[in-house]
Amino acid sequence: MYNYAKRRMKRNLENEIKASVLGGSGYSGIELLKILSRHPRVHIDKIFANNSAGKFLHEVHPWFKNRLDLRFESFDSAAVCSSDVVFIALPSGEAMNVVPQLLSLGKKIIDFGGDFRLKDISLYENFYKRTHSAQDIVSQAVYGLPEWNFSAIKSASLIANPGCYPTSAILPLAPLLKDGLINTKGITVSSLSGVSGAGRSSSAEYSFVEVNESVRAYKVGSHQHIPEIKATLEAIMGTEVSITFVPHLIPITRGIYSSIYASIDKGITAATIVQSYQKHYSAAPFVRVSDSLIPEIKNVLYSNFIDIGFRLYPDNNQIIVFSAIDNLVKGAAGQAVQNMNILFGYDETEGLL
Amino acid sequence: MYNYAKRRMKRNLENEIKASVLGGSGYSGIELLKILSRHPRVHIDKIFANNSAGKFLHEVHPWFKNRLDLRFESFDSAAVCSSDVVFIALPSGEAMNVVPQLLSLGKKIIDFGGDFRLKDISLYENFYKRTHSAQDIVSQAVYGLPEWNFSAIKSASLIANPGCYPTSAILPLAPLLKDGLINTKGITVSSLSGVSGAGRSSSAEYSFVEVNESVRAYKVGSHQHIPEIKATLEAIMGTEVSITFVPHLIPITRGIYSSIYASIDKGITAATIVQSYQKHYSAAPFVRVSDSLIPEIKNVLYSNFIDIGFRLYPDNNQIIVFSAIDNLVKGAAGQAVQNMNILFGYDETEGLL
Amino acid sequence: MYNYAKRRMKRNLENEIKASVLGGSGYSGIELLKILSRHPRVHIDKIFANNSAGKFLHEVHPWFKNRLDLRFESFDSAAVCSSDVVFIALPSGEAMNVVPQLLSLGKKIIDFGGDFRLKDISLYENFYKRTHSAQDIVSQAVYGLPEWNFSAIKSASLIANPGCYPTSAILPLAPLLKDGLINTKGITVSSLSGVSGAGRSSSAEYSFVEVNESVRAYKVGSHQHIPEIKATLEAIMGTEVSITFVPHLIPITRGIYSSIYASIDKGITAATIVQSYQKHYSAAPFVRVSDSLIPEIKNVLYSNFIDIGFRLYPDNNQIIVFSAIDNLVKGAAGQAVQNMNILFGYDETEGLL
Amino acid sequence: MYNYAKRRMKRNLENEIKASVLGGSGYSGIELLKILSRHPRVHIDKIFANNSAGKFLHEVHPWFKNRLDLRFESFDSAAVCSSDVVFIALPSGEAMNVVPQLLSLGKKIIDFGGDFRLKDISLYENFYKRTHSAQDIVSQAVYGLPEWNFSAIKSASLIANPGCYPTSAILPLAPLLKDGLINTKGITVSSLSGVSGAGRSSSAEYSFVEVNESVRAYKVGSHQHIPEIKATLEAIMGTEVSITFVPHLIPITRGIYSSIYASIDKGITAATIVQSYQKHYSAAPFVRVSDSLIPEIKNVLYSNFIDIGFRLYPDNNQIIVFSAIDNLVKGAAGQAVQNMNILFGYDETEGLL
Repeated sequence: MYNYAKRRMKRNLENEIKASVLGGSGYSGIELLKILSRHPRVHIDKIFANNSAGKFLHEVHPWFKNRLDLRFESFDSAAVCSSDVVFIALPSGEAMNVVPQLLSLGKKIIDFGGDFRLKDISLYENFYKRTHSAQDIVSQAVYGLPEWNFSAIKSASLIANPGCYPTSAILPLAPLLKDGLINTKGITVSSLSGVSGAGRSSSAEYSFVEVNESVRAYKVGSHQHIPEIKATLEAIMGTEVSITFVPHLIPITRGIYSSIYASIDKGITAATIVQSYQKHYSAAPFVRVSDSLIPEIKNVLYSNFIDIGFRLYPDNNQIIVFSAIDNLVKGAAGQAVQNMNILFGYDETEGLL
Repeated sequence: MYNYAKRRMKRNLENEIKASVLGGSGYSGIELLKILSRHPRVHIDKIFANNSAGKFLHEVHPWFKNRLDLRFESFDSAAVCSSDVVFIALPSGEAMNVVPQLLSLGKKIIDFGGDFRLKDISLYENFYKRTHSAQDIVSQAVYGLPEWNFSAIKSASLIANPGCYPTSAILPLAPLLKDGLINTKGITVSSLSGVSGAGRSSSAEYSFVEVNESVRAYKVGSHQHIPEIKATLEAIMGTEVSITFVPHLIPITRGIYSSIYASIDKGITAATIVQSYQKHYSAAPFVRVSDSLIPEIKNVLYSNFIDIGFRLYPDNNQIIVFSAIDNLVKGAAGQAVQNMNILFGYDETEGLL
Repeated sequence: MYNYAKRRMKRNLENEIKASVLGGSGYSGIELLKILSRHPRVHIDKIFANNSAGKFLHEVHPWFKNRLDLRFESFDSAAVCSSDVVFIALPSGEAMNVVPQLLSLGKKIIDFGGDFRLKDISLYENFYKRTHSAQDIVSQAVYGLPEWNFSAIKSASLIANPGCYPTSAILPLAPLLKDGLINTKGITVSSLSGVSGAGRSSSAEYSFVEVNESVRAYKVGSHQHIPEIKATLEAIMGTEVSITFVPHLIPITRGIYSSIYASIDKGITAATIVQSYQKHYSAAPFVRVSDSLIPEIKNVLYSNFIDIGFRLYPDNNQIIVFSAIDNLVKGAAGQAVQNMNILFGYDETEGLL
Repeated sequence: MYNYAKRRMKRNLENEIKASVLGGSGYSGIELLKILSRHPRVHIDKIFANNSAGKFLHEVHPWFKNRLDLRFESFDSAAVCSSDVVFIALPSGEAMNVVPQLLSLGKKIIDFGGDFRLKDISLYENFYKRTHSAQDIVSQAVYGLPEWNFSAIKSASLIANPGCYPTSAILPLAPLLKDGLINTKGITVSSLSGVSGAGRSSSAEYSFVEVNESVRAYKVGSHQHIPEIKATLEAIMGTEVSITFVPHLIPITRGIYSSIYASIDKGITAATIVQSYQKHYSAAPFVRVSDSLIPEIKNVLYSNFIDIGFRLYPDNNQIIVFSAIDNLVKGAAGQAVQNMNILFGYDETEGLL
């Protein structure tokens, strides 16, 4: 058969790093492996998934056949010695058990879950409904939103990759809040998510028949991304911000669409809004702001871009800001690779366009 | 072949009325014909569709083969002489050209479009972007929302059947506003609609490939249902109400899901909210309110019910009310038949359960 | 709240029968309850579902709220004493445990599963991979395909309601085979099914993300409907018939589409084909044959019709026959009610149009 | 804003070629631009689309914003002087008007349409229902199926890129036919296609509501890919082959699934089949054959692979072969780039993994 190994050898470049992935069998992990396999400066070192240990990646995900000849292993911190960076694509609650060890080995870590995103442990324990077992490490973690934390990411050891909903809400809100253009009170984020956001699930509630041709809001007031959105915006602002966040499940595979309603002062024009975005995002390669187009999910599918658009609603002194991302890319694996690029001094867009 | 005519003759009951349908080839018109064909007290008299005149219904919509042996005719007001009621399932802007004539013939009329919903002609002309040619008749029209206008509907000649989005927004909001439980300012209605809401369209923007796996907000601040929602709630309340309404297109065929955000006083409990709904809707057969379940579109598909649920969001002194309807049934044809039932003294649910 | 009980009382007619449903929580059972609730001559007596016992139907399926005020019970054969007919909407393999008892109580039984469809026990045991525990009863069962077994159904005690794929394959094939118009060898049935055909499942393979935007063939050569199609056609023909049947899963909720490829003699024309269908189905209310239209699933959704169309492929001496049904209606619950109508002397279409 | 131009300059490699695209606004053209924009050895020179001339690519397709800063031009053969290769992604019937000119300019041409695929002009004129205006050029064209025509492609000037259905049918059939493992008569290809296969359409028959939750066969016996499949297999075999091909439209955006039914001699085993595929495709980087897995569309989405699997059906002396491709990649743009890679001496997989 065709010699793929030979082909790939040709791609090896100088400055290549070695990356391992814990949890490569969930949707975010798969997406990460797809992106890394095309990244010109990454060699995928090892992939770990306890319940698939011993199997080839392509046996679990036939999409990878003749693309990546990797075999899942059971995780063992010694096994990652050869890696420069370890991505943790495990469900929230599992990273805190392995991160201390990995840090002590001097590895750079990018965690997809929620364990290290919230500085306030009590918020974590309330919303995630479990005890945090690595509390002393939380303060070291850098929230991996490159558009706002670029410098901190550059020198971080542990990056808490943002949640999908928070990415879709924080990026459109932060400039307007920072520049005092919208009221910090009464902000409503009404978000729609594709089903892959629920992870690889065998629950009947995510079966095709139950989800197709339907819509439902869920976890109203209790979703674990509520404190993440609020705390991140407050860290950026330095003052309290009140957010109402309501997620909905809709019958699409990928994508998040957030419609954000906020109060605005009377004089503010569309031009002022655009200026604010330009000021904050002129160097941000993955933020696309339009003063005319309303975002659509299809324009960001399989991409690391976030599209932002808005409409003033002058009758009610409101602005509605819309954002669209691919939850598995800018909302997870793509943003993780963006963070990795920053961490290792590569161009932020390397492997992501 | 099987003698369907014979079967149907057996269904004839006393007190049967004759109904005609103008515009039976759009999605609402088709849905109406489906409902009427099962209604025990209705004989479908004539169906009109100028661009299908001469064709059998089942040639245009094979679903009806061996169900309804009707032939489309070109509309002619004389042709409806035999009918007790005329349903107008035409696009907005067309009813105003035929209603004056039909009224003068003494027919009961139920209009699906927007021509007679707004008492303020200038609002109509602004939002529908056309001149109203039957302004003197507007005042006679009764807004056909049975849960609030039962008595007026009973004696109406011309019923303006509500829009789909307005039905999904007004029914959950009206009791809470009427009872002073939510603030009349800062109400946000974020609605998701299936594609049939756009009508039978050959526009590329509603093609499968463009809509599937995507979401988009549209007509923000300019949708023709904005003044309908606002004016109806103000008529019920007697005071001004401010509403921000944002519709979104999502990849489902049928259904509307509205998530409604409103400010609420601190003391108000879930029990108070439920009491308000019970007070106003205890006699309303198609309103289902839950104090625990969040509505889902699948629970109302192909039904005339509206499901209402809610969550208090005490941190922000807010309530979020959710509603789900089938846009073609409670949002159009089902509600029209509910109005017809009231008009002719039948049980409100006849033919609709 | 609205008095639904009062409304329903008005519907009571003479000649009403009482029906019970075992297994009312799967998709076919739900569909059956929807149909029975609208049937003018049926009173739903009891519903059984062991794992939902004690719960109201609307708690398990909110669609039924304010429609049917029934409570699930644990099954107990004594409990069905008051019923005239018992529908068994359980997975294959379960009916054989309760049917002997129910028959001894003199109940009419309509079984949705495969336990009593195959006269040859060894075929059953091979394809269903279990031992048959009620073999002596198999011979009493009548295969409930009304278009071919009307008289036998009329006097049956136990009706084996046909499978969904077999219904979609046998109805288009039987007339052509019976009239010697197609070759009994080399018939290929390539069928596409919606996901509800797999039943209410919590298996990851039927999750939205796995099914959406994909297609897969499955159980090639081993599907349990293979012997059902073959044996039924052979019973009708009196000679051996060879069938290759391949099912595929596609991302729709409901519906089966079968494309059937067969050899045909050179002289045979479209008119001959149509005559054959007319001869056999002129009295069949739910079979719609077209000599011009190719069937589409949307034309039979939520209906008990089967649409049949065909094309001659003269270059290769072939005919391709297409059929479309709703798997939950003509492929399950609708056909069951059609059988019930025949059993109790009602018009075959009662409650089904 | 972020300087994308600067980033892209860094990617320039030696041996880079310049490519132009005629018809960059259809689905295949868009897919081609996506692939070319990531290809390390291609500079996209010019894009042409008469009805979008003057507009930026991202204005027509916002997906490209901040990715490709290209502007559509009206086509003019002089404008492609700077290009090494011209892709023609126009509807069939348009390439024949521009190819003669382009050939005389010495350009390499890869045509997506059907104009140069059939050597027998009368077949073209019958199935495409138009007169061929460049008949003398047809004989120069090479059918661009790399797995069978590698050498001819290498030295071709004009490549007729295969149709999507033919790719999905020919690749699984050719080895088995060539090795005499299946009968050349009575081959049935039952194919399912996503809606993007119909092109960017504003026809109501491809609207979301008409396609979603439905299936239909179409163009039975008259599809323009019938002679392409037949003639290509006959060219490979050197003898006549009879094929029945039936395409179906299903509600997915991308992908083709072909289920192929053929007669097989009694002795033939799965091992023999696999050997045949290995023999012919061991050097084919994009053909993945499995002796156990049945293909699924999701495993080939957004990829240039074709997945092939099969099952023997010994009772009926049949084999069923299944194939899955992404119609826009291996069925159009990806295969075109594969051809381009061969034409310019690059690794066949360059830019495609």
